[in-house]
Amino acid sequence: MSRPVPKIVKARVTPILISDPPLLNVLGVHQPYTPRTIVELETDTGATGVGETYGDTEYLRVARALAEAVVGKPVTALNGLSELAYSAAQLTDDGEEFDPAGLRGRRTPEKTVRSVVSAFEVASLDALGKELGLPVHALLGGKIRDRVDYSAYLFYRWAEHPEADAPRDDWGAALDPDGVVRQAQRFADTYGFRSFKLKGGVFEPDAEIEAIKALAKAFPGMPLRLDPNGGWSVETSVRVAEELADVLEYMEDPTTGIDGMAEVRRRTGALLATNMCVTTFGEIPEAFAKDAVQVVLSDHHYWGGLTATRELAAVCRTHGVALSMHSNTHLGVSLAAMTHVASVVDNLDFACDSHRPWQTEDVVTRPHTFVDGALEVGDEPGLGIELDTDALAALHERWVRREDMHDRDDVAAMRKADPSWTQPPLPRW
Amino acid sequence: MSRPVPKIVKARVTPILISDPPLLNVLGVHQPYTPRTIVELETDTGATGVGETYGDTEYLRVARALAEAVVGKPVTALNGLSELAYSAAQLTDDGEEFDPAGLRGRRTPEKTVRSVVSAFEVASLDALGKELGLPVHALLGGKIRDRVDYSAYLFYRWAEHPEADAPRDDWGAALDPDGVVRQAQRFADTYGFRSFKLKGGVFEPDAEIEAIKALAKAFPGMPLRLDPNGGWSVETSVRVAEELADVLEYMEDPTTGIDGMAEVRRRTGALLATNMCVTTFGEIPEAFAKDAVQVVLSDHHYWGGLTATRELAAVCRTHGVALSMHSNTHLGVSLAAMTHVASVVDNLDFACDSHRPWQTEDVVTRPHTFVDGALEVGDEPGLGIELDTDALAALHERWVRREDMHDRDDVAAMRKADPSWTQPPLPRW
Repeated sequence: MSRPVPKIVKARVTPILISDPPLLNVLGVHQPYTPRTIVELETDTGATGVGETYGDTEYLRVARALAEAVVGKPVTALNGLSELAYSAAQLTDDGEEFDPAGLRGRRTPEKTVRSVVSAFEVASLDALGKELGLPVHALLGGKIRDRVDYSAYLFYRWAEHPEADAPRDDWGAALDPDGVVRQAQRFADTYGFRSFKLKGGVFEPDAEIEAIKALAKAFPGMPLRLDPNGGWSVETSVRVAEELADVLEYMEDPTTGIDGMAEVRRRTGALLATNMCVTTFGEIPEAFAKDAVQVVLSDHHYWGGLTATRELAAVCRTHGVALSMHSNTHLGVSLAAMTHVASVVDNLDFACDSHRPWQTEDVVTRPHTFVDGALEVGDEPGLGIELDTDALAALHERWVRREDMHDRDDVAAMRKADPSWTQPPLPRW
Repeated sequence: MSRPVPKIVKARVTPILISDPPLLNVLGVHQPYTPRTIVELETDTGATGVGETYGDTEYLRVARALAEAVVGKPVTALNGLSELAYSAAQLTDDGEEFDPAGLRGRRTPEKTVRSVVSAFEVASLDALGKELGLPVHALLGGKIRDRVDYSAYLFYRWAEHPEADAPRDDWGAALDPDGVVRQAQRFADTYGFRSFKLKGGVFEPDAEIEAIKALAKAFPGMPLRLDPNGGWSVETSVRVAEELADVLEYMEDPTTGIDGMAEVRRRTGALLATNMCVTTFGEIPEAFAKDAVQVVLSDHHYWGGLTATRELAAVCRTHGVALSMHSNTHLGVSLAAMTHVASVVDNLDFACDSHRPWQTEDVVTRPHTFVDGALEVGDEPGLGIELDTDALAALHERWVRREDMHDRDDVAAMRKADPSWTQPPLPRW
């Protein structure tokens, strides 16, 4: 049987704002609303697909340019998306960094392009899968596991945002060991998570050490992780690593930079994970040669999509470096994509991170629910999700209204509570 | 649209012998017949697919075991093939080498499994592509080039095999610079090849240097390569590299072993390619760290298939190591697979090798023809080939008759002409 390859006839890019709790990190606090970009594709055969990526202004600009450029292209033409994006957005891949201080590692034009391409690749695979009656994992060579484990993502947090009309939830504050353990308990009770990651870099290291020890006591034997987002000096990192050697599964980005990470590793033997030190293929040779990271936390957005994630997995496998998955604030579209790609990668060595339980809103009609800390890998066509167009429209409406939130800025959000707050230089401790 | 994923209902493994000219190399000479394995799959939806791989006894044993194991599996379940093969063939991936002296680099159970899996993966993609109406390249994210360049593969050779009833051709002998240039000219005239590789390691290095210089004179400016299959010491390699510095595109496996290759590179700055020093992912970290190879010649058979080839490409891209493609004696099935995967890999930096023009037989109904030294990347479903079942049956008949050729053994073949011949220790010069 032969037939023309389906072509993309429509590509819609919708910027949205999703509500986000006041989660604390080394830079400040999450804004009440976080920008995301939703990409919808439609083929000449009537198949539709959806993808999701970061939503800050520069991502949105590139996404809009790529949306124009993909019309008329085969929906299977994934390998050409990157070049198309550079050209459409008038970028080059050797461009300068434009915001090196964020929590996502280097911020280069290459990474922006990869992040945007990921949404179009996922939307294409979703559409192609629906067209062919195949789940996305089958388009990636088939799942090798039926469920993907996720880790509970614990945050120090306030009970509510300083803004009067910001969204609220009933989780309450978590600003000390007891609060962190309570939060973990609710995650465990509600979703069955069996490993816990605490976002650190918020309080003095000793306070965070106490929180981890409290978790270790409350959940004996369960894997624990601590991630201060590069907030510590090498000396502090070494001290924390030694204090928590018996209870941490790994430390995530204790300090910034390849040399600092390598020194912490050399002096402590601690397993170090990263989504900041190594976030592009270009950083791998030096980091791996210096043994700076032992676990790469992939983010399919900024590594460039699902195939790129498999390529990263192959590079890690080749070098005996472990792999797991990073998460930023995201919705069910990306969670579905994460789960599909996680199901096909043999060397996924640790439970994945996901912010998803913190998000009360979604753009899919049947939001995922974690059971026993995991998601099942579905066999429905495409991503196995359906876009909730009413929800999408409402979240886009919010984006139109709230121009002040078009870029995620945790420093600015913190300043609303503390007008004297400025971006802390790293290391902070 | 949803439908069950097609399942494999039949898997047939057919060992064949294909005629091969008396091509010379460091070990000896090609036998009159070379074993290959053809894999045919059929799905419950009636789609069929074909794959090809090495045919020596151990490959065949593993292929037959895997053929039983894949029945009932989804044709999309490519990521699980490897584990299935280990289990079905009762092998483990940390098994010992069983023939380290061949021309294909390490010979481990892992590499045998990968070589066999590649044929099943290709056959699965062919079947799936036909089922879905998509070319194999589209299943790999879409071609990024419409034609794939190949290099003319020049050999020192005899006019005919010593066996009286062996197959013959009209190429005549090529045993000196004139003969090599004549052969190159015929390749250029017939197929339009615009780069040339000479299989060396046959004569004294000085004789081969003269042959390359004669080629350089006859084809000014065209890329030239010389491959003695590890036949030289480091000293000899350095001398040849220096003598040919101005005319060689790269030297392929001048000497054996990572340290020897690294020393040649260090002392000459010559670009070194390999299909012997690095033929598994496990060899990459040390070889790349020592700068032992600058061009990896992938062979989709022994690297484990088309997706594995893309993974290799990603590893090479990450480390700034170039990529091209190795060839052993093969037929149109593998040539189609090579062309599809070559069309999707962005960092394919040199024209691919192919023995194909030396093979007068094929198992496809419309054998490929090189035009302007290249093959077009087709858009027909699957691999775009059709199996010639009569030809397959005839070549299998030959395999049944000629038990003495079930394993490729260039040393034994040479012994027919020269009874005193024994496997030369490497380095030979």
